[in-house]
Amino acid sequence: MPGRFKIAIVGASGYSGAEIVTLLLRHPRVELNTLMTANQERQGGRSQKLSDVLPQFLRLCDLEIEPLDFDELQRRDIAIVFLATPNETSHEVVPQLLQRKLRVIDLSGSYRLRERELYPDWYGFEHRFPALLDSAVYGLTEVNRERIRAAGLLANPGCYPTSILLPLIPLLRGGLLSSEVDIICDSKSGVSGAGKSPSSNTHFSEVTESFKAYNVMRHRHTPEIWQELGNANLIFTPHLLPINRGILSTIYVKTKKTATESMIADCLLESYDKEPFVRIHRNGSLPEIKFVAHTNFCDIGWKFDAARSNLVLISTIDNIGKGAAGQAVQNMNVMLRIEETLGLL
Amino acid sequence: MPGRFKIAIVGASGYSGAEIVTLLLRHPRVELNTLMTANQERQGGRSQKLSDVLPQFLRLCDLEIEPLDFDELQRRDIAIVFLATPNETSHEVVPQLLQRKLRVIDLSGSYRLRERELYPDWYGFEHRFPALLDSAVYGLTEVNRERIRAAGLLANPGCYPTSILLPLIPLLRGGLLSSEVDIICDSKSGVSGAGKSPSSNTHFSEVTESFKAYNVMRHRHTPEIWQELGNANLIFTPHLLPINRGILSTIYVKTKKTATESMIADCLLESYDKEPFVRIHRNGSLPEIKFVAHTNFCDIGWKFDAARSNLVLISTIDNIGKGAAGQAVQNMNVMLRIEETLGLL
Amino acid sequence: MPGRFKIAIVGASGYSGAEIVTLLLRHPRVELNTLMTANQERQGGRSQKLSDVLPQFLRLCDLEIEPLDFDELQRRDIAIVFLATPNETSHEVVPQLLQRKLRVIDLSGSYRLRERELYPDWYGFEHRFPALLDSAVYGLTEVNRERIRAAGLLANPGCYPTSILLPLIPLLRGGLLSSEVDIICDSKSGVSGAGKSPSSNTHFSEVTESFKAYNVMRHRHTPEIWQELGNANLIFTPHLLPINRGILSTIYVKTKKTATESMIADCLLESYDKEPFVRIHRNGSLPEIKFVAHTNFCDIGWKFDAARSNLVLISTIDNIGKGAAGQAVQNMNVMLRIEETLGLL
Amino acid sequence: MPGRFKIAIVGASGYSGAEIVTLLLRHPRVELNTLMTANQERQGGRSQKLSDVLPQFLRLCDLEIEPLDFDELQRRDIAIVFLATPNETSHEVVPQLLQRKLRVIDLSGSYRLRERELYPDWYGFEHRFPALLDSAVYGLTEVNRERIRAAGLLANPGCYPTSILLPLIPLLRGGLLSSEVDIICDSKSGVSGAGKSPSSNTHFSEVTESFKAYNVMRHRHTPEIWQELGNANLIFTPHLLPINRGILSTIYVKTKKTATESMIADCLLESYDKEPFVRIHRNGSLPEIKFVAHTNFCDIGWKFDAARSNLVLISTIDNIGKGAAGQAVQNMNVMLRIEETLGLL
Repeated sequence: MPGRFKIAIVGASGYSGAEIVTLLLRHPRVELNTLMTANQERQGGRSQKLSDVLPQFLRLCDLEIEPLDFDELQRRDIAIVFLATPNETSHEVVPQLLQRKLRVIDLSGSYRLRERELYPDWYGFEHRFPALLDSAVYGLTEVNRERIRAAGLLANPGCYPTSILLPLIPLLRGGLLSSEVDIICDSKSGVSGAGKSPSSNTHFSEVTESFKAYNVMRHRHTPEIWQELGNANLIFTPHLLPINRGILSTIYVKTKKTATESMIADCLLESYDKEPFVRIHRNGSLPEIKFVAHTNFCDIGWKFDAARSNLVLISTIDNIGKGAAGQAVQNMNVMLRIEETLGLL
Repeated sequence: MPGRFKIAIVGASGYSGAEIVTLLLRHPRVELNTLMTANQERQGGRSQKLSDVLPQFLRLCDLEIEPLDFDELQRRDIAIVFLATPNETSHEVVPQLLQRKLRVIDLSGSYRLRERELYPDWYGFEHRFPALLDSAVYGLTEVNRERIRAAGLLANPGCYPTSILLPLIPLLRGGLLSSEVDIICDSKSGVSGAGKSPSSNTHFSEVTESFKAYNVMRHRHTPEIWQELGNANLIFTPHLLPINRGILSTIYVKTKKTATESMIADCLLESYDKEPFVRIHRNGSLPEIKFVAHTNFCDIGWKFDAARSNLVLISTIDNIGKGAAGQAVQNMNVMLRIEETLGLL
Repeated sequence: MPGRFKIAIVGASGYSGAEIVTLLLRHPRVELNTLMTANQERQGGRSQKLSDVLPQFLRLCDLEIEPLDFDELQRRDIAIVFLATPNETSHEVVPQLLQRKLRVIDLSGSYRLRERELYPDWYGFEHRFPALLDSAVYGLTEVNRERIRAAGLLANPGCYPTSILLPLIPLLRGGLLSSEVDIICDSKSGVSGAGKSPSSNTHFSEVTESFKAYNVMRHRHTPEIWQELGNANLIFTPHLLPINRGILSTIYVKTKKTATESMIADCLLESYDKEPFVRIHRNGSLPEIKFVAHTNFCDIGWKFDAARSNLVLISTIDNIGKGAAGQAVQNMNVMLRIEETLGLL
Repeated sequence: MPGRFKIAIVGASGYSGAEIVTLLLRHPRVELNTLMTANQERQGGRSQKLSDVLPQFLRLCDLEIEPLDFDELQRRDIAIVFLATPNETSHEVVPQLLQRKLRVIDLSGSYRLRERELYPDWYGFEHRFPALLDSAVYGLTEVNRERIRAAGLLANPGCYPTSILLPLIPLLRGGLLSSEVDIICDSKSGVSGAGKSPSSNTHFSEVTESFKAYNVMRHRHTPEIWQELGNANLIFTPHLLPINRGILSTIYVKTKKTATESMIADCLLESYDKEPFVRIHRNGSLPEIKFVAHTNFCDIGWKFDAARSNLVLISTIDNIGKGAAGQAVQNMNVMLRIEETLGLL
């Protein structure tokens, strides 16, 4: 495929990695060139095709999953390397890739936080590459598009933060919110957000017909949200929905007394008017997870009680779509300076 | 069955009514004597057994569903009549029953609000029996037990209010909460709460793998919660979970600055120490819907950030259990002055 | 969009109709030109956009849903009209469209059976257009491709028949099956197969955590399967899965004594080697619904007990994909003589 | 609790073990005396209450889980020991218990097959206690009640076999079935049948919205069914439903030419007329999983095509109820010569 950018994915057999494969197979300007794994034990020595591991790719993708080889990636002239790998793996692998002048989109949280000191507490490891934390670009496309264009290391946002930042940032920048009352983010996610490793938390019989909060006040996406909002007066509570894909965040804010319904509407509509992947629901219509499942959209709606200055925002994304693989591909398009919606509609 | 109290249910084929049947079939001190329906059309003239409509009752309950007949209920010496009927039906039927000196447990919302003026706005009908609104006893068992004992008309609480009032009332009474910040109740319910009538909101394909908020700031349980808390600074947002049974409420409150972790624990533990159906989760353990499904328990847990005075309460109930039929049977036991846990453990 | 074929859909707000919209929006050679509805009452007089009814199409499709107008379809030079309408509607509408020289792909069952006599019994209405039953082409693409190319009226296959015919036809034609023992087709379908109208059969609380057989020996897809196999010694039992999309059929056949594992493998592999949308699972691997959900694939696998000549075939499709909208678009591609996989991979 | 039989459970934290706890807590004639585990590692040295591991038992069961101690069981005068343990554990533990004159109900498959030779192939281990295979009583209560009464070692039936044997045995004994055509059992089970250990097969994201066959022609319940029917001309195919609890088996048989609808009805109705836990659906009504979930019932219905002698039987059970814990408690009641339905209705 001449004229196409060559792309590599490390970790294609996980949920986000497999979704990147799906999106790139339909993409008219890139060639899915290389699949690698950092987890060689799991392969057990034998070479495997992606479709051996994930039969949904039969007839669609016959690439082999190769062991991770930095030099080989450089040799193959890969335009972008996606890392759909665990935090600890990305932490180790990113410097090796950058050293070989490879551009990287990392879906893990390893390069999202600017403050190195936060890693031991929230991620459980010492960060050994603080200079890279400075140079990494936080990939919330709608907010950081210009910096993303030139990024060498793109830290793709977390799923929860994406669903919370997109509705809140315009309202904060627009000066519509009171700073006297905490923002409360009550978020609910599908199980795919927990990844592919079986555990009792993701065991079907434990999840179906149930629902729970988890990591209350301790979820590692909390400092990421605080950082990007520049504001730590925000309480974040994640919950586990008995569904596979999707996040809905219910966000409670106090507006300034002067705020009106139309000011809120204008702020959101104008902010996202030209954004292809943010949809504002008008006239009191509210987003639901099914409207965004298997897409790269973030949908936003709200209800406002002007008398009490109470604003309830509802936002939805597909946690594997706009919350991970979709936004990663959107960022790839920006980094490659091709049309931002390619492969995503 | 000599020595057993005779019980009648109007509306036994709905979800709450059927659950009352299930509970009473196991109850050692009552006899499920009579099933009636106010909805004669639906029966189409032919007499039907409950097990014809609901085959789970084959071999368990052979009672016929009779047309509603107030005099007959009186003649049969029914000790308690359960109304598991729509709001409008209960509104009409209650006075007729009371007139015949029958004691009534009404599962609808028609006699829960003391202020008649609230009905047109929140329930869509004019309430024609304001005197009965005064005499009805609100059946949150743990809170109103003494008054329930003598009740002629028991207004069984709504499912959402039950899940919200039980954790909040002791903390409010204990003076632990700040009154300066709104209480936020983000609640999530299974689909059975919407009842048995098919609609696009409860159509399987529309619900599975999705999630949504609904009736934001407009749900009719809101004034009920305000009334029982004596406090309208509370925002209530219900959501629809893709499960059949269960409610989880995540409740955000600011405590007074002086409140400590142990004060919160002591308040909840002491309030519910002797209550058989409220379970306090300690040591940071949090309730999940599956722990209370198909039971009459309300489970309560919390996380407290003392530095910021932020308290997140999590409560769970089965919306058909403690949120409807279970609490109704608990109230029946209190009204009949028999052991409160009979038929419920 | 010059150079694109103009397409119309009648019934775009149903599950199959909406899926055709989704597929055509991504199709490089057609223009989704017109949406119409035969159900004017439902529209209530006001004009509505598709995205008003189905918010997943916000920003994606702004077409209005117009009242059905045969002349207008002709005037707009529509290349293909999809009918995603109920049986009775299609029955009436098809002759009107054909009269105006419009080519039609009908997703209902109204023109699938060649024998007019079967309609009253299996479909509940007298068929008034027997000549059209003769000229309609049954659209199982892999089997009837040549006739489909020239079809004026394409009767798109039922979902269950598609999942049953694709594995059986090659084995029957290859002479591998014994004719002495009935073929048994035990099929399981997601709820979307029942369409969008709410009913107690599709009420979430009645479906979740349950499973049932229905229409045993009486499902209207039975004569369609018999017709296409030329064989009525086949028992078909449909079941309702608590999922949205997907069918899995487990098919039990006796092979001839002479049949071997490799003869079965060769027969299936050779038959579908060049088919882009039929995937044969080898080496004992079996298809699962998740591998084909949201695709146009039919996956086929099997287990063979040579000693007893027992062959168990497993086939899977997405009932809305290959079982309805996907196969309809595949047939459209064939009828328009463009690449068969366009818009479908 | 004077006058109550003392009961012990080994393996109470698994799904079947926990269900036995639930059932025995409501049982009026037994005392749940002892919980033990054979899996001491998992306990990590610390003593744990059942409610620490399974919070649904808060306030309901405060028993500690003790390490398995055969002598202690004897000393405590335990009337029945339930083994809700893996096959290999039961295999080892049973002889130790019998040696101490303890009566055992084993829920595993380790003592169900009479032929020792079958174990290596179907269960993966050499059976070292063939004499016990001779003395074990197969606990299909309705069929073996007399022998169960005196059993020292009760081999509780598998879930699938229970759902298949109960409908077939009366028809076979009644001479209604043709022996010329294989019986086909297409069975579908909820995920709890796979137990509590997480695996990719039971990972929520892999199960929800999907469906698959597994262990086709190789499931270890196959020889158990053959043994109890005395007939190996039966094909058994298990499938995995995306639900927690319940089995539905669709069974295809040819009747003798002389069989009539009323002969089938009479045979089933008369066989189970006095059985409290088998319910025959009449008049073409068919059982569904939801009618038996959380019960000890086996429901049976059928459709018969007399012209072709085709009989389709549908049976349903709760795999954890009648398929495991429920039937185990039913057998306990028989062994203790108390009323068979105690604790089960």
